[in-house]
Amino acid sequence: MIRVAIVGATGYAGVEALRLLHQHPAARVSYLGSHSQAGTEIGKLYPHLGRAGAAVLEPVDPERIAARADVALLSLPARQGLDLAPRLLALGMRVIDFGADFRLKDLEAYDRYYGGPHTAPELAAAAVYGLTEFHRQEIAGASLVANPGCYPTAAILALWPALRAGLVDPGDLVVDAKSGASGAGRQATPSGQLAEQEANLWPYKVAGEHRHTPEMEQELGLAAGEAARVTFIPHQVPMSRGLLATCYARLRAPLDEAAVEAVYLEAYGSEPCVQLLAGRLPSTRATLGSNLAQVAVRVDGRTGRLLAMAAIDNLGKGAAGQAVQNMNVMFGLQEILGLPLLGLVP
Amino acid sequence: MIRVAIVGATGYAGVEALRLLHQHPAARVSYLGSHSQAGTEIGKLYPHLGRAGAAVLEPVDPERIAARADVALLSLPARQGLDLAPRLLALGMRVIDFGADFRLKDLEAYDRYYGGPHTAPELAAAAVYGLTEFHRQEIAGASLVANPGCYPTAAILALWPALRAGLVDPGDLVVDAKSGASGAGRQATPSGQLAEQEANLWPYKVAGEHRHTPEMEQELGLAAGEAARVTFIPHQVPMSRGLLATCYARLRAPLDEAAVEAVYLEAYGSEPCVQLLAGRLPSTRATLGSNLAQVAVRVDGRTGRLLAMAAIDNLGKGAAGQAVQNMNVMFGLQEILGLPLLGLVP
Amino acid sequence: MIRVAIVGATGYAGVEALRLLHQHPAARVSYLGSHSQAGTEIGKLYPHLGRAGAAVLEPVDPERIAARADVALLSLPARQGLDLAPRLLALGMRVIDFGADFRLKDLEAYDRYYGGPHTAPELAAAAVYGLTEFHRQEIAGASLVANPGCYPTAAILALWPALRAGLVDPGDLVVDAKSGASGAGRQATPSGQLAEQEANLWPYKVAGEHRHTPEMEQELGLAAGEAARVTFIPHQVPMSRGLLATCYARLRAPLDEAAVEAVYLEAYGSEPCVQLLAGRLPSTRATLGSNLAQVAVRVDGRTGRLLAMAAIDNLGKGAAGQAVQNMNVMFGLQEILGLPLLGLVP
Amino acid sequence: MIRVAIVGATGYAGVEALRLLHQHPAARVSYLGSHSQAGTEIGKLYPHLGRAGAAVLEPVDPERIAARADVALLSLPARQGLDLAPRLLALGMRVIDFGADFRLKDLEAYDRYYGGPHTAPELAAAAVYGLTEFHRQEIAGASLVANPGCYPTAAILALWPALRAGLVDPGDLVVDAKSGASGAGRQATPSGQLAEQEANLWPYKVAGEHRHTPEMEQELGLAAGEAARVTFIPHQVPMSRGLLATCYARLRAPLDEAAVEAVYLEAYGSEPCVQLLAGRLPSTRATLGSNLAQVAVRVDGRTGRLLAMAAIDNLGKGAAGQAVQNMNVMFGLQEILGLPLLGLVP
Repeated sequence: MIRVAIVGATGYAGVEALRLLHQHPAARVSYLGSHSQAGTEIGKLYPHLGRAGAAVLEPVDPERIAARADVALLSLPARQGLDLAPRLLALGMRVIDFGADFRLKDLEAYDRYYGGPHTAPELAAAAVYGLTEFHRQEIAGASLVANPGCYPTAAILALWPALRAGLVDPGDLVVDAKSGASGAGRQATPSGQLAEQEANLWPYKVAGEHRHTPEMEQELGLAAGEAARVTFIPHQVPMSRGLLATCYARLRAPLDEAAVEAVYLEAYGSEPCVQLLAGRLPSTRATLGSNLAQVAVRVDGRTGRLLAMAAIDNLGKGAAGQAVQNMNVMFGLQEILGLPLLGLVP
Repeated sequence: MIRVAIVGATGYAGVEALRLLHQHPAARVSYLGSHSQAGTEIGKLYPHLGRAGAAVLEPVDPERIAARADVALLSLPARQGLDLAPRLLALGMRVIDFGADFRLKDLEAYDRYYGGPHTAPELAAAAVYGLTEFHRQEIAGASLVANPGCYPTAAILALWPALRAGLVDPGDLVVDAKSGASGAGRQATPSGQLAEQEANLWPYKVAGEHRHTPEMEQELGLAAGEAARVTFIPHQVPMSRGLLATCYARLRAPLDEAAVEAVYLEAYGSEPCVQLLAGRLPSTRATLGSNLAQVAVRVDGRTGRLLAMAAIDNLGKGAAGQAVQNMNVMFGLQEILGLPLLGLVP
Repeated sequence: MIRVAIVGATGYAGVEALRLLHQHPAARVSYLGSHSQAGTEIGKLYPHLGRAGAAVLEPVDPERIAARADVALLSLPARQGLDLAPRLLALGMRVIDFGADFRLKDLEAYDRYYGGPHTAPELAAAAVYGLTEFHRQEIAGASLVANPGCYPTAAILALWPALRAGLVDPGDLVVDAKSGASGAGRQATPSGQLAEQEANLWPYKVAGEHRHTPEMEQELGLAAGEAARVTFIPHQVPMSRGLLATCYARLRAPLDEAAVEAVYLEAYGSEPCVQLLAGRLPSTRATLGSNLAQVAVRVDGRTGRLLAMAAIDNLGKGAAGQAVQNMNVMFGLQEILGLPLLGLVP
Repeated sequence: MIRVAIVGATGYAGVEALRLLHQHPAARVSYLGSHSQAGTEIGKLYPHLGRAGAAVLEPVDPERIAARADVALLSLPARQGLDLAPRLLALGMRVIDFGADFRLKDLEAYDRYYGGPHTAPELAAAAVYGLTEFHRQEIAGASLVANPGCYPTAAILALWPALRAGLVDPGDLVVDAKSGASGAGRQATPSGQLAEQEANLWPYKVAGEHRHTPEMEQELGLAAGEAARVTFIPHQVPMSRGLLATCYARLRAPLDEAAVEAVYLEAYGSEPCVQLLAGRLPSTRATLGSNLAQVAVRVDGRTGRLLAMAAIDNLGKGAAGQAVQNMNVMFGLQEILGLPLLGLVP
């Protein structure tokens, strides 16, 4: 039985990890760490935890964590992992960081997007980017996995096969992504209240401002073998969870849809967490509460574009679910052990 | 491994049973029966099923079902169980009926509310009402379990301890219940479209018209040891799932809240699927996707009323979840095996 | 052209008054007062105001308000009207208070529910309770109108005719009411975020704790000519606006529905803002954005109860719409001038 | 007082026209025509209409319509206007067609997208495309106005100034648009039920399949003075109303944002129904129930793209609101007479 510490357990990704691990047959949560709420029963913050809510949040003390857990899931604000991850690793733990502190190999980009210098550059270099489907083998041996952001997970799943096969121009990519409100975290704002958010849809952080931009470009560039350039606009949608990335790429040469589908089938045909749709399109609800990603691809011959779409649960495959998937890989378990793969419908 | 047939698998309760059993460690779905859609892949109707959607719906053929399954979950329109259940039982199967055909012991009430004579009265007498918490022992030995309706599940969980302890008058009960839209089933109507149902809340089938009225009265009367009389108004609420019953009962004598809470703690303190709340009130979201029921009780000394509230997921503890709970009991498994008990929050 | 000051313009009821008056042919908003945001363009807080958002919030200065407006709509936290209303009245203004400071004639109840002694008792006595349909004549001549609470508006509209006609026992009333999230105001909390409030429904302030309890009892007692006693439970529903009161009363004698309907038709047949429904039941969506109330009544002969239901928009007939209706009456205008009476559907 | 006939009054756009005209000071609805529901009170279909629901739907009889109305708003399925519009025009009426039958000047495109030959080509040539801001003068004198589709309205408002000013390449346009569910009309389907549509977001009719594609290209081409080519993907979002178009265009030369904003300010600075946002981005809720469009523009210098966004209410500026705006122009009234310009928030 793997003993798991969740550090930053009161955030949405942390509490989703708790929910998922509650049903995991080979892991159990042995430590709930919180900087701000140590001493509180987590059920006071989250009444949906039922009897599991009786667990008491504890301080973020590396020694205690390492004594009681084999792996730490860090669900912390940006930059907080820079200090904590090295200490946990030094104590012999394995670490899966939900944050962005170890995702970028280009540390200048990190500094620019995350407000200052990276203080653990050797770890950034050693960390494995945890998009399981594309880094499975490195994840298996990794001490530190940088769990991907929600938007990058969907965009990369949508575009990776086309870039890897050289079908599209990596310099001309548009990612129009839409996320449920939980992606914004638990901070309460008037515009996030249901009273104002019902029937409300809006774009935000346009023109490359969003921190997930360099992350997409890094991984899509790796797939293409040359630099990728993404115009990215995220949107907030009036729903609790769910994320759809609609991606527009320029075909390098005219291609029929069957040829493109064959490339995607090759990439995803045996992936347990990716459902490649033929004859239908992804929908977020189909992934609700699960670790499933739905992917579809189309060719718009008239305008010479490839259209690739992926739907995920932003807290599932987009955060905590993928972390559990990575944990399974790191510990040699069946990759989907304990992971729901059916969405909550209706 | 228990082999389970779901008959009527394309309805909301049926497909939720499929979702739950997909993760059950000691049961597997071996037959998906459908009157109207035999031959169709269920994933064509429900894209959230991922790879499980490849299963093909089969005809409702008792012989084939009995040959391939140990227990049948019937999720059928009213009156269709009258014919099918006896045939499956005669073939040696055990049956859990999600419908109302075997819930009522008063067959005159059945005839009045369900449009004609009951054609299997001896089975109605033998069937066990499957509100697990109150009929656990009979369920263990039952061949035919009548799985409760969603509204009765919540109302009975809210009121049962008070009636059993004689605290309130069974002749003066008000149940004001609110349900998510999935309770109305999959029939498409303009008023059920999100375009018209967003921000919409309405009562329906007031004044005892709703079929769940006699079911509540039967079980609450059993608890009280005398006839119960319920004024019941259901409401539809703009949400997919979730059900809250707010119940108003007349106290037989002034009582302080601590005394009432002690009665409820006695009833529910060891129940794995019932969370008795102290110092807070139930919320539907806390039960989303799970088999959890949240119950709270208060005394309004000023008006001499006991106020009892229960929240469930109408497709979880209110339908498919409770069916799995009953199945576990019937087959001697741990009662909560494979059942989620944490809600999907956020 | 009536010049209107809105004081507390940044709250939900205040900004809804602004929206409604923007289209009023005989009134215009001449002053927007705010304690906390003076100096700010209101459009910075509320982008939906379009060009009207260019108006700048001003301090709450009674002299300036009185110099620039004929009537003040006060949309303030409890107890803040106690001081401001007398000052505005002394300056010759007419005042419509959206708050509760002048609704209750029983000042002991005020003190108990609103945290301390009432400091303007003579004004509390002189103020007219602004449920237009029942106090129309006094409103016409009033200087100070206490605009009703949202829950009382719906509950009183539902029950008043039955109590006035002596059909039901005023000592045995249950009001189960459900409100959209805007009723809780603009304070941001995690549970109010769409991420947590989607698919969430919960009761709150049960057992007579809610401040609207004495207000309902006052007006229902007036209707009955004897003390009324209400068991009241409010609920929050996952929608932005809309309020439904489902009321249960004990019939004094068996009555058929036609007789009850005749009583309600007598009360509401000529009311422009009340739609008495025959053969259907109220729904909140039908009133969205409007000043309409939908009312229906039924008899549950089996349990001897009268069931009365009313749906309103909590910010329309439940707050700002009713204030405009009262303003129209106070200034001798056509009662529904400028008021939308059709809901926003779909 | 302009007498208005609404033909196809039971659809969502038709009933929204009825709602808007109910408050119009210089127009009144004098005829409600319906092919399928003649003889029915419209309030039986739409309970939100209050007393206006007493109006009875009448047959679609051109002679009767022309005798009783000055202008006809046609809200009909595709191809039904081909026959009706000529007959109403021949009887001396003016016609505003909500449908697509007279929007396209390229009748080959019409035939391809709308299933067969256009049977009134001279009317297609004579009709004026009713995007008021760009065809105001022709609308004033038109007998037949082709009211724009909802997606084209938003996309054209977003991109027109940039194309007119030659800032971007008309051959490289991406329109990623998101619409509330009412855009799909009143046909009831399981996936449109709130039970399945809550938390659901999906793309549909990708790769140029959507009928609004040629309409966008026609008007954007007119703005550019050369052929426009649009890659268009519409999405359905879990909300009743609201539409956002997020548009990506290739800048012909590097430009700073101030220069682009100046171009947009020139285009929209005096438009009463277009709010050009500076320093913030559009949101659909801000336009709910109104005829307002919110537009914003940004430059992504890193990728050389112009990003233009427009939010509207798909039934307001996207359908019935724009029709009333056009009617006002056609009849020489103030353009915004009777039109709400503030959204319903919260």
